[in-house]
Amino acid sequence: MTSVAPKQEMTPATAALMARRVATIGPHSPLFYDTPLELVRGEGAWLTDAAGRRYLDGYNNVPHVGHANPVVAEAVSRQLRTINLHTRYLNHMVVDYSEALLETFEAGLDRLFLVNSGSEANELALRIARQHTGRSGILVSDFSYHGNTTSLAELTTGLAVHEEFGTHVRAVRIPDATGLDAQAEAALRDQALAEVDAAISSLQEAGHGLSASLFDLIFSTEGLLNVPAGYVEGLAQRVQAAGGLFIADEVQSGFGRLGSRMWGHQLYSITPDLVTLGKPMGNGHPVGAVVTTEALLDEFGGRNMYFNTFAGSPASCAAGLAVLGEMRDRALMDNALATGKFIADAMQQIAKNSPLIGAVRGQGLFFGYDIVRPGNAQEPDAAATKALIELMKDKGVLISRIGRDDNVLKMRPPMVIEHEQAQLLVDRLAEAVAEVTARQG
Amino acid sequence: MTSVAPKQEMTPATAALMARRVATIGPHSPLFYDTPLELVRGEGAWLTDAAGRRYLDGYNNVPHVGHANPVVAEAVSRQLRTINLHTRYLNHMVVDYSEALLETFEAGLDRLFLVNSGSEANELALRIARQHTGRSGILVSDFSYHGNTTSLAELTTGLAVHEEFGTHVRAVRIPDATGLDAQAEAALRDQALAEVDAAISSLQEAGHGLSASLFDLIFSTEGLLNVPAGYVEGLAQRVQAAGGLFIADEVQSGFGRLGSRMWGHQLYSITPDLVTLGKPMGNGHPVGAVVTTEALLDEFGGRNMYFNTFAGSPASCAAGLAVLGEMRDRALMDNALATGKFIADAMQQIAKNSPLIGAVRGQGLFFGYDIVRPGNAQEPDAAATKALIELMKDKGVLISRIGRDDNVLKMRPPMVIEHEQAQLLVDRLAEAVAEVTARQG
Repeated sequence: MTSVAPKQEMTPATAALMARRVATIGPHSPLFYDTPLELVRGEGAWLTDAAGRRYLDGYNNVPHVGHANPVVAEAVSRQLRTINLHTRYLNHMVVDYSEALLETFEAGLDRLFLVNSGSEANELALRIARQHTGRSGILVSDFSYHGNTTSLAELTTGLAVHEEFGTHVRAVRIPDATGLDAQAEAALRDQALAEVDAAISSLQEAGHGLSASLFDLIFSTEGLLNVPAGYVEGLAQRVQAAGGLFIADEVQSGFGRLGSRMWGHQLYSITPDLVTLGKPMGNGHPVGAVVTTEALLDEFGGRNMYFNTFAGSPASCAAGLAVLGEMRDRALMDNALATGKFIADAMQQIAKNSPLIGAVRGQGLFFGYDIVRPGNAQEPDAAATKALIELMKDKGVLISRIGRDDNVLKMRPPMVIEHEQAQLLVDRLAEAVAEVTARQG
Repeated sequence: MTSVAPKQEMTPATAALMARRVATIGPHSPLFYDTPLELVRGEGAWLTDAAGRRYLDGYNNVPHVGHANPVVAEAVSRQLRTINLHTRYLNHMVVDYSEALLETFEAGLDRLFLVNSGSEANELALRIARQHTGRSGILVSDFSYHGNTTSLAELTTGLAVHEEFGTHVRAVRIPDATGLDAQAEAALRDQALAEVDAAISSLQEAGHGLSASLFDLIFSTEGLLNVPAGYVEGLAQRVQAAGGLFIADEVQSGFGRLGSRMWGHQLYSITPDLVTLGKPMGNGHPVGAVVTTEALLDEFGGRNMYFNTFAGSPASCAAGLAVLGEMRDRALMDNALATGKFIADAMQQIAKNSPLIGAVRGQGLFFGYDIVRPGNAQEPDAAATKALIELMKDKGVLISRIGRDDNVLKMRPPMVIEHEQAQLLVDRLAEAVAEVTARQG
């Protein structure tokens, strides 16, 4: 997924920039592609590199309402020229934004803490859960990532961290029902929920108890898994029955990305206790949130002097309001549904013509392809996946990959992607799949 | 320091805003003043409230180069209209800013991690230290605050948190040499350093060992203490001799606030292993950093896939660069020295005329007054301190307070404060001190 040692030639200018980068933020800060891409300009779903070449962005969800969105830029700019202070003085912006954001949630989830990142949001959600329950145990998926603090490193299963996996954490395998009939799907669900039961019992027997579960409910880091019907409901029921708080991490699935729902957890018949937000929230402005109930906010607020210097400042809220405004004014959830369906249908067609492609995954404007050994839909092919990503870049389209076997092509364009751009994306994808298939064959 | 239940009448409009705020971010989010102040506009060191009344900002350090600074607003705005992406693609802004920032540090401190807040910076510094040492013990001051994550809550001594104080943390009392002669000062230093020795031994005996110390080296939360000569050097020597990493938290003391030095740790003959930055860094844009050595960056980077979605993005770096540019172009450290000396001299004069004032504290543009019972410089008077802050607000000047006894007046205006504004600040301060002194007498 990332490359720290560029393998191909760079232009002298890019090589010089790369050397200066290594001499400041170091050689380990991850970069995409064998030859890192120097991007200098964006507009909507387009990006332009230092050589003036244009790329279609099929990957980035942070620029949710489009690269260099002028409405967001103007809102932040206007606020920075007016006032931008912390929340120890009153200002209407934090209230205006909080109301607008909370309106998108179901009844009961009507309070929030504003923070500066998804990491800060998950960190705070876990503090709230530990304090509420008086217990420490946490349930996560066995291939996931929720942020870069110590508490979150201790429960990271989806990338390299030096910290030992927490003795107070249990990781469960998320079931994938792709291709199963109803009976097999139900059996898989029951088996996976039995694993959840065992994990909760194990935490209780070890004396940790269960404080919270923390899941991205579209299981994107795991590879955009198709969980069996009833699995998430069973998971939430078990967590809450054990007295734990159910945390829905919406950093990937939120803000209408799925088209059909504003929030990923709304795909299921569940009520999370805490919902954490990040990436697309400010179109790149650092902002995150924990949405919760009045009771949980009150309990935590009464026990802790919680303050966050930057969070809730008028400029952060202006960015957030502009994102919600653009989503509404440009009907971007409708676009996620319609353009998403167009891309998904085309992906199904492409898949039919290549033995390289196993499952087709995703919904709304979030797509995945399992890339497998021809003739064996169960055998992941990370090398072919990498080849596809590099080839797509050569063809002017940026995508990436996810999953425990590094073999799920990940496509997640800005929500403003237009029909012609979607057509370009699937045309280039068809070509790339054909070329890599021919190489393999 | 904060008030959650407004005690005085608000205008109907402000009361309505307050009610909406309580119904979204809740009643516990801290607010200054008996009657919360609704601020709607800023310019330089001026702030304007909803009724159109103007206040001199004698408190806020986040708007370092001035409220609504047009250079910062323009830099962020231009970048938001161009491109604003994470660091997995190359872009010159993260390199330009990192180089400019690292140039202000001494040799050896020549690498950095960019993050989104001071909390994220201290959180990361502790991760680096724990991994480097393989130990968990932490040394802090017994009245300090370094951020709002779980790891930082466990070592918080300066405000209310529900978490139990970490068994792996030792808190030492910071010595204040104010008013002592050289011999007494040396004795106090030796006694305080013996306490440090004991704390480190205690961590070692308990099996935690020492991973790091974490101090704000102007001891501002503690009340802007005047530590004995040689204390900080002795502290650093002991921490590093025990194999611990010495973390300098520059969230309060950094970015030229002290006038004489860019960084607070440069007041002493020490070399920190890690330096953490936050508040003033982006003039309110959420940005922070951990500055460290190549060896420590390499060790941590090699062991962990560390990535931070928002940090290092071009807009964050544009804000940071604009702050450094304004500091240079407007010679703001010179202003901190000159205007700071003017205020400090005036504060000494005012102190002579009031038995309410014990020590006069601070340097550069960071000032404190111990407010005490008349006739007893050792007996803190929190009520009189509060009265002074409210009275200063009535007179159109915003200040606050710090310290374990809530009795140290805290003045820390934006770095752009002008001579006439400084004159206004000390004139109003003289009036307020005289009035509260008369009330007490």
